[in-house]
Amino acid sequence: MKIVEMRFHPIAIADPPIRSSYGLHAPYALRTIIELVSDDGVIGITETYGGDSQVAGLEALRSQIIGADPYRLTGFLSSLVEGVKPSGEVRNDRSQTFLVPGENPLDATTRTFAAIEVACLDLIGKSVGKPVCDLIGGRVRNEVPFSAYLFYKHPGGGGEGTDARSDEYGEVLTPDSLLREAKQMIDAYGFESIKLKAGVLHPDIEIESMKVLYRELGVKYPLRIDPNCAWSVDTSVRVGLELAKELSGEGYLEDPCASLEGMAEVRRRLDEAGVNTPLASNVAVTSFGDLPKSIPLRAVQVVLCDHHYWGGMRQVQHLAKVCQVFGMGLSMHSNSHLGVSLMAMAHVAAATPHLTYACDTHYPWSATSDEVCAGGRVPITNGCVKITDKPGLGVELDYDQLARGRERYARCPYRKRDDELEMRKHVDPTWKRILPRW
Amino acid sequence: MKIVEMRFHPIAIADPPIRSSYGLHAPYALRTIIELVSDDGVIGITETYGGDSQVAGLEALRSQIIGADPYRLTGFLSSLVEGVKPSGEVRNDRSQTFLVPGENPLDATTRTFAAIEVACLDLIGKSVGKPVCDLIGGRVRNEVPFSAYLFYKHPGGGGEGTDARSDEYGEVLTPDSLLREAKQMIDAYGFESIKLKAGVLHPDIEIESMKVLYRELGVKYPLRIDPNCAWSVDTSVRVGLELAKELSGEGYLEDPCASLEGMAEVRRRLDEAGVNTPLASNVAVTSFGDLPKSIPLRAVQVVLCDHHYWGGMRQVQHLAKVCQVFGMGLSMHSNSHLGVSLMAMAHVAAATPHLTYACDTHYPWSATSDEVCAGGRVPITNGCVKITDKPGLGVELDYDQLARGRERYARCPYRKRDDELEMRKHVDPTWKRILPRW
Repeated sequence: MKIVEMRFHPIAIADPPIRSSYGLHAPYALRTIIELVSDDGVIGITETYGGDSQVAGLEALRSQIIGADPYRLTGFLSSLVEGVKPSGEVRNDRSQTFLVPGENPLDATTRTFAAIEVACLDLIGKSVGKPVCDLIGGRVRNEVPFSAYLFYKHPGGGGEGTDARSDEYGEVLTPDSLLREAKQMIDAYGFESIKLKAGVLHPDIEIESMKVLYRELGVKYPLRIDPNCAWSVDTSVRVGLELAKELSGEGYLEDPCASLEGMAEVRRRLDEAGVNTPLASNVAVTSFGDLPKSIPLRAVQVVLCDHHYWGGMRQVQHLAKVCQVFGMGLSMHSNSHLGVSLMAMAHVAAATPHLTYACDTHYPWSATSDEVCAGGRVPITNGCVKITDKPGLGVELDYDQLARGRERYARCPYRKRDDELEMRKHVDPTWKRILPRW
Repeated sequence: MKIVEMRFHPIAIADPPIRSSYGLHAPYALRTIIELVSDDGVIGITETYGGDSQVAGLEALRSQIIGADPYRLTGFLSSLVEGVKPSGEVRNDRSQTFLVPGENPLDATTRTFAAIEVACLDLIGKSVGKPVCDLIGGRVRNEVPFSAYLFYKHPGGGGEGTDARSDEYGEVLTPDSLLREAKQMIDAYGFESIKLKAGVLHPDIEIESMKVLYRELGVKYPLRIDPNCAWSVDTSVRVGLELAKELSGEGYLEDPCASLEGMAEVRRRLDEAGVNTPLASNVAVTSFGDLPKSIPLRAVQVVLCDHHYWGGMRQVQHLAKVCQVFGMGLSMHSNSHLGVSLMAMAHVAAATPHLTYACDTHYPWSATSDEVCAGGRVPITNGCVKITDKPGLGVELDYDQLARGRERYARCPYRKRDDELEMRKHVDPTWKRILPRW
C-alpha cells in the first residue's frame, strides 16, 4: 500500500464570541482537514489546526509523503518528534504562555507530524477494517468521558453574513448565566464534569461562579477552573483556598499563573495550607522538554495533553507513561474543532490506560451546519464518545460540507488566530493581554 | 480475526558453561515458544523465558486469550503492565540484584504480557503482510546493531549426552584467551562493539582483560564491562578510573555495584575525578517504578531495556521516551535466547528512535542445532540484524526443531535457572554469591 495523493482542505467554521485570558474568539475558527489516498483507493483523514502556516508545514513534506507506505511513514518522519533536549538543556523560552495553541512555533514540527500520523493510522485502520485505538495498543475503554467546557461569552453564535449561526447560549457574563449555560450543555450532552474557562472576569466573580455551580449542581460534577495564567501567584493561592471544597474530588486548578516557578510556588503555598487541589497545565508544560524541570519543582500534577501538538497518538501514550511513573495525572486539552478531531481524541484516549480525568472538548461550541463528518455530528451521550468497531477513526468526510468549509475559509479575512485583536475589534479598542491581570 | 488456539512449547537449548557474578550457566537454558493461532489459520509466535512458572503465567490467561481479537487483546490485558507505583511509593525491594532475569517475581506479569503482545503483533503482521516494527510506529533503521558479548567460560559447549555441543570457544579464563574469543566472535559476526560479562575473576585480571582488548583491537570497538554488582563502591570507582580511556566513546560501566545509592555514589566520585563514563544498568533499574528514584540520584545514565520483562515492545518505546526526556541513553539487555527473541529485539529496536547503543545479545552462544526458526539461524552480518519486508517478526517455526527442543526440555532435570547451584556442582562445592565480592 502506497500513498498516491495528499489533499489539504483549509476550512473555517463559525465560532461563537467566547472569552479567555487570551482575548476573544473570532467569528471563525480555522481548521485543516487532511486526506491521504492510497493506491488501492482507501482514504485516511485527519483534522488539525488551521491557517496558512499549518498547510505550509504539511505541504513542505509532500515529496516524502507521496509514494510512502503509511505503515512506515511515521518512522521515516520520526525526527520531527525527536527534538527533545536532554534535561540539562530544557527550553525556558516556552511561548505558549503568550501564543495560543496552534500558533506556538516550538510545536510546528510536532503538529505536522501528528496530523500525518493520525491520517496514516486512519488509512491503515480503514485498510484492515480495524479502529485506530486497536492499532496503537488496543482500547482500554469503550466510552471516553468528556467534560462540559464552559465559557463566558458575548451575545452571538459565531460566523458572519450567510454563515451567521443562531446564538445557542446567549450572553454569559455572570454566575447565574454561567449556571444556565452549564445546565443547557449538560442537558444536551450528559457531561458529568465541568470546566470553566476563567481569567476573564474579576476573580471574585469567577469564584462566585464556581460556588454557584457547586451549590446548584452538586458534587456529582467535579469542577475545574482554567484562567490561562491570568492570575498572580497570590491571587492563584487565594482562589485555590477559596475554592478548596469546590475543586476537591476529581477537580483541579489549571494554569492559574504563568511559569513553572509560579506554579511551583502556588503548589507549595497550597500544600502549606493543607489544600491538595492538583494543579493542571497545558501552558507551563506543553512538550516533553518541559518535564525534567517541572517534575522536581512539583509545578504540575495533571498534564493536559493534546495529540495535535504533542506529536500524535503514540507520543501521547508515551506522555501518559511518564505521568504515571512520576505520579502525575493526565487529561486532555482541546481547541475549537470538528468531529474528526473529536474522534481522534477519543481513539487515543481509549488506548491510553493512564488517562485519569474526563477530557476537554470545544465540540459543543461547533455546529451541525459546519460539521464535515458524513452523517452529521458525532454523538456525545452521557458525556461520552463511544468507540465502536468502525474502522479507522470511525468517520468519513461529507464532501459537500467540506466544500462549504473551504468557501468559508476563502471568505474569512484572516489566516491565523488572534484573540487579542478580536478583543480590540469587538469589546475594547485598548485591550491588551496583561499577565498577571489580577 | 479471533485467536482460536494457543500453544506453549517449553524447550531447552544447549548453553555453554559461561560465567557471571550470578554463577555458572547450566548445560541447558530454558525458553518458551508461544503460538497464537487465528481463525483464518495465521500463526503468531514469540519466545520468552523458560521453565514452569512462565508457562503457568501464560496458561492462567488462556480463557482470556482464546476468542480474543489480537488487535484488542493487549488493551484488554493492559492492567498487567500498568502496576507502576507513583513516585512517592517506589519499590525499594528490587530483587534483580539477587535473582537472575526471568526469575524476578516483580516482573512476572510484565513478562507474561510481553509474550502475548509480541505474539499478537507477529500474528497481526503476518495477517496484513507487514513487519512488526512497522506496526508500532515504523522503523527508523533497517539494520539493528548488536554488540559482541564476551564471557569467561569453562571448557565445554553446553548440553549433555546426545545434546552435547562441540566447544566453539574453549576455556576462556585469562586476558589472552578472552582476546581470542573476541576475535573469533567478531570474525564470525562482524560486531563493532564489545561487552565483557565481568565480576568473575579478580578485578585486576578483568581490568587487564579490557586493556588487552582495547590495545589489540583498537578504538573501533567501544568497550563495555558488566560485573553484575560484584564490586564494592570503592572497587567500582577504582575500575572506572583505571578503565577511563578504555570505556570512553561509546563505552559504559554496567552495574558495577548493587543498589541505586551505590551506583549514585560511584557516579559522584567518577565525576569528581573528571571521568564521565556512563553507568548503565539492568539491575538497579528494571522497571518504570525504579525511575523516579534513579533519575534525581543520577544512579544510571544508560538503561538496558529488555522487552521480555519491561512489558513488551510498546513499553520499551515508552521507556525510550523517558530516557530521551531525562537525558539518559538506552540500550538492550539480553539472556540466552534463540532467533525468535533476536528478531523481536531487532524489531522493537528498529522502531525505537532513541536507542543510543548497540544492543546486547547472547545469540552467538546458541547453536544451529537448537535453533527453532525455519531455515536455521538468523544472520548477524557486520554486527547487525537486518530488518526486511517479511511480515511479522520475519521468522517462522521449524516444527521438527521445536519438537527436539521439547524433548531436551523433557530430559532436562531442572525447571528454573540457578547459576549458584551450577557453580557448586561443577566448579566449587562451597561457592556462594557474595555481594560485593571484591
